[in-house]
Amino acid sequence: MDSQIVTFLINCPDDKGLVAKITNFFYSKGFNILSCQQYVNSIENTYFMRIRLNAEGTHISKKELEANFLELAEPLNFNWSVNYGDRKPNVAILVSHTSHCLYDLLERQKEGDLDCTISMVISNHDKLRPIAEMFNIPYFYLPVTKGAKEKQEEEVIKLLEDHKIDLIIMARYMQILSSNFINSFPERIINIHHSFLPAFQGANPYKRAYERGVKLIGATAHYATEDLDEGPIIEQGVERVTHDCTPKTLKRIGADVERLVLAKAIKCHLQNQIIVANNRAVVFPESGE
Amino acid sequence: MDSQIVTFLINCPDDKGLVAKITNFFYSKGFNILSCQQYVNSIENTYFMRIRLNAEGTHISKKELEANFLELAEPLNFNWSVNYGDRKPNVAILVSHTSHCLYDLLERQKEGDLDCTISMVISNHDKLRPIAEMFNIPYFYLPVTKGAKEKQEEEVIKLLEDHKIDLIIMARYMQILSSNFINSFPERIINIHHSFLPAFQGANPYKRAYERGVKLIGATAHYATEDLDEGPIIEQGVERVTHDCTPKTLKRIGADVERLVLAKAIKCHLQNQIIVANNRAVVFPESGE
Amino acid sequence: MDSQIVTFLINCPDDKGLVAKITNFFYSKGFNILSCQQYVNSIENTYFMRIRLNAEGTHISKKELEANFLELAEPLNFNWSVNYGDRKPNVAILVSHTSHCLYDLLERQKEGDLDCTISMVISNHDKLRPIAEMFNIPYFYLPVTKGAKEKQEEEVIKLLEDHKIDLIIMARYMQILSSNFINSFPERIINIHHSFLPAFQGANPYKRAYERGVKLIGATAHYATEDLDEGPIIEQGVERVTHDCTPKTLKRIGADVERLVLAKAIKCHLQNQIIVANNRAVVFPESGE
Amino acid sequence: MDSQIVTFLINCPDDKGLVAKITNFFYSKGFNILSCQQYVNSIENTYFMRIRLNAEGTHISKKELEANFLELAEPLNFNWSVNYGDRKPNVAILVSHTSHCLYDLLERQKEGDLDCTISMVISNHDKLRPIAEMFNIPYFYLPVTKGAKEKQEEEVIKLLEDHKIDLIIMARYMQILSSNFINSFPERIINIHHSFLPAFQGANPYKRAYERGVKLIGATAHYATEDLDEGPIIEQGVERVTHDCTPKTLKRIGADVERLVLAKAIKCHLQNQIIVANNRAVVFPESGE
Repeated sequence: MDSQIVTFLINCPDDKGLVAKITNFFYSKGFNILSCQQYVNSIENTYFMRIRLNAEGTHISKKELEANFLELAEPLNFNWSVNYGDRKPNVAILVSHTSHCLYDLLERQKEGDLDCTISMVISNHDKLRPIAEMFNIPYFYLPVTKGAKEKQEEEVIKLLEDHKIDLIIMARYMQILSSNFINSFPERIINIHHSFLPAFQGANPYKRAYERGVKLIGATAHYATEDLDEGPIIEQGVERVTHDCTPKTLKRIGADVERLVLAKAIKCHLQNQIIVANNRAVVFPESGE
Repeated sequence: MDSQIVTFLINCPDDKGLVAKITNFFYSKGFNILSCQQYVNSIENTYFMRIRLNAEGTHISKKELEANFLELAEPLNFNWSVNYGDRKPNVAILVSHTSHCLYDLLERQKEGDLDCTISMVISNHDKLRPIAEMFNIPYFYLPVTKGAKEKQEEEVIKLLEDHKIDLIIMARYMQILSSNFINSFPERIINIHHSFLPAFQGANPYKRAYERGVKLIGATAHYATEDLDEGPIIEQGVERVTHDCTPKTLKRIGADVERLVLAKAIKCHLQNQIIVANNRAVVFPESGE
Repeated sequence: MDSQIVTFLINCPDDKGLVAKITNFFYSKGFNILSCQQYVNSIENTYFMRIRLNAEGTHISKKELEANFLELAEPLNFNWSVNYGDRKPNVAILVSHTSHCLYDLLERQKEGDLDCTISMVISNHDKLRPIAEMFNIPYFYLPVTKGAKEKQEEEVIKLLEDHKIDLIIMARYMQILSSNFINSFPERIINIHHSFLPAFQGANPYKRAYERGVKLIGATAHYATEDLDEGPIIEQGVERVTHDCTPKTLKRIGADVERLVLAKAIKCHLQNQIIVANNRAVVFPESGE
Repeated sequence: MDSQIVTFLINCPDDKGLVAKITNFFYSKGFNILSCQQYVNSIENTYFMRIRLNAEGTHISKKELEANFLELAEPLNFNWSVNYGDRKPNVAILVSHTSHCLYDLLERQKEGDLDCTISMVISNHDKLRPIAEMFNIPYFYLPVTKGAKEKQEEEVIKLLEDHKIDLIIMARYMQILSSNFINSFPERIINIHHSFLPAFQGANPYKRAYERGVKLIGATAHYATEDLDEGPIIEQGVERVTHDCTPKTLKRIGADVERLVLAKAIKCHLQNQIIVANNRAVVFPESGE
């Protein structure tokens, strides 16, 4: 293998000696362990590890590494994945009318803050096309016409599959995705919900926040699952508000929370910091290697 | 009137010239206006004012002042109240098992940070008596026995009425108050709920927060109303948490949020900063007079 | 006057009856008072007011209004200014190498969140020209060559004056402005400093934050004054960091604080929410009219 | 060894294979690794580990364990310490006039939130004695008389040594400790400074914060070192303030930040979460075992 950073994500039943066994395995194969983050869920007796390795100086092939690792993994019942950091993930952004998250993501990617390729923007409206064009990103306008929602979804799925999209970002996409769509991309769709979940699930959270008279509003980035707004939470943020705020000012204040929370969540996903288990997202902090 | 600070709280339908009319009224009676805070709800077309006056040098009696004010207030449909700052409010604290809010309130009052008299602590358990005794506050143990909840409530109400209690603080009191109780003390009962409402209404919020995998937990201080946890929100706070937190650590982290949020809410109430309308609490900031 | 929103900013020595006198004045001229925010500095005995008026139905000219207001203002020693909301301020953005604040401001203005015209971007480097061009904003490249700093400043000043620039934003402009420059635009230059002032004044704040091992980093937006980083603070923000952060990650985390803090400060300035006195900025909250 | 939790803190030059070597060592001795937290400082090429072990089922003595560990530690240049969790640390609290941190710490300890024995309160004033007495903690009044500061310090040191004090908390102790005092208790004195260091080092931070017109105030808990307020930072907190705040209200708002920040820092110290190197405190998060 070249001088590259390899990341393994592992979760399994907790057991004595796991960290010693795993770190030994990689050490014996000649890897330098850059960071090794663990989490033990003592309630469910489960173990999670994110381990980052420098492959420099190893002479093992990917195939061989994975075959050898399987010998360790199987008896210990690992769920695991490996990322070799040698291919930029392809990302598609789904939007409707609202521009702030789209701008934010396109800008971060362009400036080198998000390690991915943004392959396309897909929308059920044509409104945000000029923004995609400013950044030279292909824009696909796939309107949802009455009675033809299913057909539109098929077109979206085809686009995503044809372009080998690794991550789908719902950047305020105001359509409910079907179970079929969701299940085609497990843990590969990130949605931003404009409230502090589980408060104000569903539509019009800012209007409802105004009516309830809350003193803080928030936003939540989560993996999309079949149950709307019930998926594993990756990141949340809040901002103080007062009685003085109207639904319109709440929306404006909330927009800044949304864009930050979504960008942080995507960064965590792209850096392989997340392991999902039992509908909860274990999000390891960025290691300061 | 003596050299005292008088606070008027006013809300009414919005109208042209309100601020000029009201401030003129007090100016013409010889009051010095220390601060004058307003809020216009442009959605509901309502007007709110908190005005603080120094009575020094005026020669008007309370009775006369109120009679004169009524002449202004009635044609303009004011809801209003006045506080002369000449009597410390009597406060009762209701608790069950949990001590952190009780300690916090007793300490703040003792150190002069809460402008009130804490007349008593009432509990359905005898557990926290030593804390009340440390601070020389009478402790009433009124257990809830099976089938006799109503009778206990009557005893509590009698205690509160006999001691002319102005404000009742539910500092983690784990009993649901009856509508009769609630309605006997409108906008005079403040509860601390150990979640960021409207998320996790009801019981066991920290356990549910763990299960939902949230990344922030919070607390909410609100006036108690018939619908549990649906009353006007006075103050909210949050703190970041991670996947690493167990329900037990969430509880500990949350305790610090609870105590701060409750103390802030009570301070706002005691300083006459709050006007409730339409189940929303208008909370004017402390004026820096 | 047309149906327009007029904003007066007033500060003066504190005196009895000020709010009544001022609100009466506007009421008697037929204005509807949309909001009236006050602040009394009881240490320095000064009074501050921001009053927003709807001119609909008044028949007074600007000239007449100001002449009449002077009769009230002079005996009471008002410092005051009035904004008729009938002209969008012209803004110039000064940048060097760093793009995040520039993107953020251009995007907010384009999306209608900043009520101004961005007339130009000026830089001592040519690097960020493509960003300005994406948003169709003229870009002026005025390099600072050795020994000719003064000449460059004169060119910048000429540009600003020729285009009648009302507000100059130093969006990470890495040049120290001369006293002459600063004093040509009093309270019209807003700078973003990438630390939580007064901590880490001067150069390389993130490197110094790393070395000091702080657990929070911040950013400060302030009016530029002769003493570098000593001007009136408009807005500040912070974000938690850990020992794990390198100067590079601090920089990235800080960038998000900077862009939010700068945008908030500029919004406050453009909405006439700020009165500066004694090197301190009184920043009235946005009124929820 | 009994069924006890053992914590090792290690820092050393970074090297390949450290995590494998260390975890193997403990695994081979029969320990169950409860958590293993690491940090690599890639700028200084140093490595830090906090490892928590369950000794249940091991048959090794402390002496043997330490002797064996030394064989691993010496060639790799470990700085290390071990805590067997079998003895509660003795804590002394130093105070002057201000009560809020003292109350907070006494209450947390009494309620079981701080795993230590509070052996005494020492003060240069007699004012806070009643608080110590409420909690049945011995109070030593050692006034600082003119020209006899050195003598008083000697008495304080003698008290601390006689009672085998492990941790000294300066809970708003308004005396500057001599170098001799500081160096007698390296990394064993925690101070709370009432500002967001390095802003407002030295005296009267709230007054200076008012004068500077900051929009956030803070507090910093740090190990005391010879250079006043320059020691390794353990924890910091902030709270928003406005122009409306006087030095007095800043002080009150700051008090709540101080007490939380100090309590968090002490908890981290007592739970062996901190390694100091190069005047920076590596503070591992609480592991959710």
